[in-house]
Amino acid sequence: MASLRAATRLRPLAVNAPRSIQSIRARRPYAVAAAVKPTSSSSEQPFFPGEPKAPVVKTAIPGPQSQAAIKELDNVFDTRSLNMLANYQKSIGNYIADPDGNLLLDVYAQIASIPVGYNNPALHATALSEQMASALINRPALGNFPSHDWASILETGVLKVAPKGLNQVFTAMAGSDANETAYKAAFMYRRQQERGGANVEFSAEELSSSMVNQAPGAPELSILSFKTAFHGRLFGSLSTTRSKPIHKLDIPAFNWPQATFPLLKYPLEDHVEENARIEQEALADVERLITTHPLPPCAVVVEPIQSEGGDNHASPAFFRGLRALTKKHNVLLIVDEVQTGVGATGKFWAHEHWDLETPPDMVTFSKKAQTAGYYFGNPELRPNKPYRQFNTWMGDPAHALIFRAIIQEIERLDLVNHTAKVGDYLYSGIESLAQKYPGEFMNLRGKGRGTFIAFDSPRRDEFLKKAKSVGVNIGGCGNSAVRLRPMLVFQKHHADILLDAMEKIVKS
Amino acid sequence: MASLRAATRLRPLAVNAPRSIQSIRARRPYAVAAAVKPTSSSSEQPFFPGEPKAPVVKTAIPGPQSQAAIKELDNVFDTRSLNMLANYQKSIGNYIADPDGNLLLDVYAQIASIPVGYNNPALHATALSEQMASALINRPALGNFPSHDWASILETGVLKVAPKGLNQVFTAMAGSDANETAYKAAFMYRRQQERGGANVEFSAEELSSSMVNQAPGAPELSILSFKTAFHGRLFGSLSTTRSKPIHKLDIPAFNWPQATFPLLKYPLEDHVEENARIEQEALADVERLITTHPLPPCAVVVEPIQSEGGDNHASPAFFRGLRALTKKHNVLLIVDEVQTGVGATGKFWAHEHWDLETPPDMVTFSKKAQTAGYYFGNPELRPNKPYRQFNTWMGDPAHALIFRAIIQEIERLDLVNHTAKVGDYLYSGIESLAQKYPGEFMNLRGKGRGTFIAFDSPRRDEFLKKAKSVGVNIGGCGNSAVRLRPMLVFQKHHADILLDAMEKIVKS
Repeated sequence: MASLRAATRLRPLAVNAPRSIQSIRARRPYAVAAAVKPTSSSSEQPFFPGEPKAPVVKTAIPGPQSQAAIKELDNVFDTRSLNMLANYQKSIGNYIADPDGNLLLDVYAQIASIPVGYNNPALHATALSEQMASALINRPALGNFPSHDWASILETGVLKVAPKGLNQVFTAMAGSDANETAYKAAFMYRRQQERGGANVEFSAEELSSSMVNQAPGAPELSILSFKTAFHGRLFGSLSTTRSKPIHKLDIPAFNWPQATFPLLKYPLEDHVEENARIEQEALADVERLITTHPLPPCAVVVEPIQSEGGDNHASPAFFRGLRALTKKHNVLLIVDEVQTGVGATGKFWAHEHWDLETPPDMVTFSKKAQTAGYYFGNPELRPNKPYRQFNTWMGDPAHALIFRAIIQEIERLDLVNHTAKVGDYLYSGIESLAQKYPGEFMNLRGKGRGTFIAFDSPRRDEFLKKAKSVGVNIGGCGNSAVRLRPMLVFQKHHADILLDAMEKIVKS
Repeated sequence: MASLRAATRLRPLAVNAPRSIQSIRARRPYAVAAAVKPTSSSSEQPFFPGEPKAPVVKTAIPGPQSQAAIKELDNVFDTRSLNMLANYQKSIGNYIADPDGNLLLDVYAQIASIPVGYNNPALHATALSEQMASALINRPALGNFPSHDWASILETGVLKVAPKGLNQVFTAMAGSDANETAYKAAFMYRRQQERGGANVEFSAEELSSSMVNQAPGAPELSILSFKTAFHGRLFGSLSTTRSKPIHKLDIPAFNWPQATFPLLKYPLEDHVEENARIEQEALADVERLITTHPLPPCAVVVEPIQSEGGDNHASPAFFRGLRALTKKHNVLLIVDEVQTGVGATGKFWAHEHWDLETPPDMVTFSKKAQTAGYYFGNPELRPNKPYRQFNTWMGDPAHALIFRAIIQEIERLDLVNHTAKVGDYLYSGIESLAQKYPGEFMNLRGKGRGTFIAFDSPRRDEFLKKAKSVGVNIGGCGNSAVRLRPMLVFQKHHADILLDAMEKIVKS
């Protein structure tokens, strides 16, 4: 499967790297490697000249070195969910290394959280800057003692890519607390409206009841989420997570409502009417719960593509309907872009595919951003008093600097448009495989959504295990889905390797 | 108030710094400053030779430069809880700088979270290392793809200072999720016992009910916390936080129980019998709630010194009683050392002051550790299946490397013993002030607890505000407490400056 022409906008690092990056590359072994010739099947320029031409599989994985190291690690760290021990110093671009000299094409990318390649030289320069050193060693309590350059770090980084209509951010640490702080903002907003506005003081009863975890101070309200959704694993976020029992068992939860998510039938073009009906029913379920649930929802939280739950898509029309419903009932719409955000769907934010009339009220992010938080636009979503939305660190300037460098790489290499194109190429390739091997690549989904592609496999766990033996690291989700989560620097020649590997897996 | 002799164990950086640190100092402006002569009141060697001899107050705070910058920041970031805009590049050791050239002795230290001084040279070297760069730019999903050196980073860092009896760690991001993951471990442990052990499978009813947030899958159990406690602000941790309504208002909460915390009377030596009775009553309240609350507690969480709630102490006998009670009723004891941990009380962990017969079941940490998590010892506290205690990042190797460097600094300079001594010196000084200005320094507390010292002020907010005008940055807690949270590199000559400043405040 040949890439037919060089992508004209892809400028290899060797040509355009600023001097600071070039000087760092000069002393990094991975960067001084001779530029690899384009693979025989592709004439495109590689983003990472030092990347290998193909995966290297030297041992069964884990190999002997890894096995010894895993045994040592298990003394102090739970390794039962360990997938592969990595050597990050030897990883490069799209390739993850292990201690045994194996080098796999990584289309799982730390559960969808590495955007611009392992040991990206521009990020490396940022990591070794004095500004980074100061952020790491003088870590501020941002709410009390922000640094004089915090506004500039936000404006040139996190906020530069804020979703349309949302010009504010509350920074957090990871996806779970990003969602939970967004939920808190939603609860405070709702109660403020019920009280009659930002200037109405809390009642004595609210003050005292809040301290004993009772209404009205601790209100009987809820966040509405969808079946098969994943929004995190802390107590509030876990109450909205509905993907798998293993995430939820034995943990107390709020009695919050869950709505039906439209589980579409594939191929989409063969089920147009049925899918439209499924989506209408799901919207009706949302409206029913908003209007009748004993704990009234003050927000609906939704993933643009349910990821952990199985890569479940819905149409832009569904999300426009959801926006209309939430507006109608004065319920906030929180879009959880923790996994879908930062380019992988071929738009910077996946909800840009929906063409909404009004933006979501809040958009949460983490993973590929390497820092976390929620965006918002309505100034009323800033709580009416200080210290209501607050904690010691309130985010992390070090990772905010990394996100800024990621954004610069995305812009420099036009990686969002690139990902849209390479995603189309990859999708077509899998479509061909699905025709050749019916029953092995089922319910292919993610067309027009960049590289955010998944399919169901009849022997999924075996598929993922075999993938390593043919040189690729792939992840799963839901009960039977293979989810592809390449980095934004994934190119056509990588797609060719991946497609060949997947064919080998199903043929074996 | 003179420091009477040079502390013999305090070795200034200039003499003993390893070569790598010296070379970094040579190119850092703050480090090449000529060594400051010991202050006239002290012959001790300063840890930071480049520190100023005294605070510098050039303008009212915020000064004109800060005001302009705050105005800009407020466009994108809520500044209503802003205390002081900082310039961390110009901060050094115990001194925090601002954009107007002010340089304050900082005994608040980012809400008790800076341990070894601003721009500490050893931390600076760690921040600029290749290992750090890799941790920042190749951020792993630790549960799935730990790095080959993760075991070593844990063993030479986080685990090297593990509390006695606890040899395992689950790493997290900040204090709130450290506590919440500990709570989750406690719930899973309790339900496993109720099911009959780790090998008993979940029932069909548990599996299905967990997905709809109902018992038995989402059990009707609780975490018991104390009145005036603070354990974080996410939904589970906030349900155990009982310090102030502003933290809790409008946020739904679990109906979990709160026990009376023994609010002791001062001076302790005048209230021995009464305080013993208060502590007995508090323990009786704990036992009553454990045995009768409709949501049975599976763990008690407690701070060694309630910090945010007002610096409320209890005696070692109280905590030994609490350990005995929790053992008796098969309830786990979680000690929240987020604020008390890492040396400030004159022991590495504050619970070392208690002389417990058996260690706590879990100890949580964050703040001065600059990374977070919980320690545990009992292997049964590892959930019985993988992916039960899991998330994408599961901590942060970058900040774990900083903690390792902090531990090395603490060991090199013997900072825990140092803090015990300088704390005694500071405490005596405030005792003298309290005698001289009765009514201004009330309920002085923290004797024998290093620099973890607090007192009540009749005009607390005014006290804190005036402190800046005389060159010190001090924090408050509870309703009327002034809490001192110097760094571990706080020395007698800094104590002299602080004592003089506090006298100026109350005299003015």
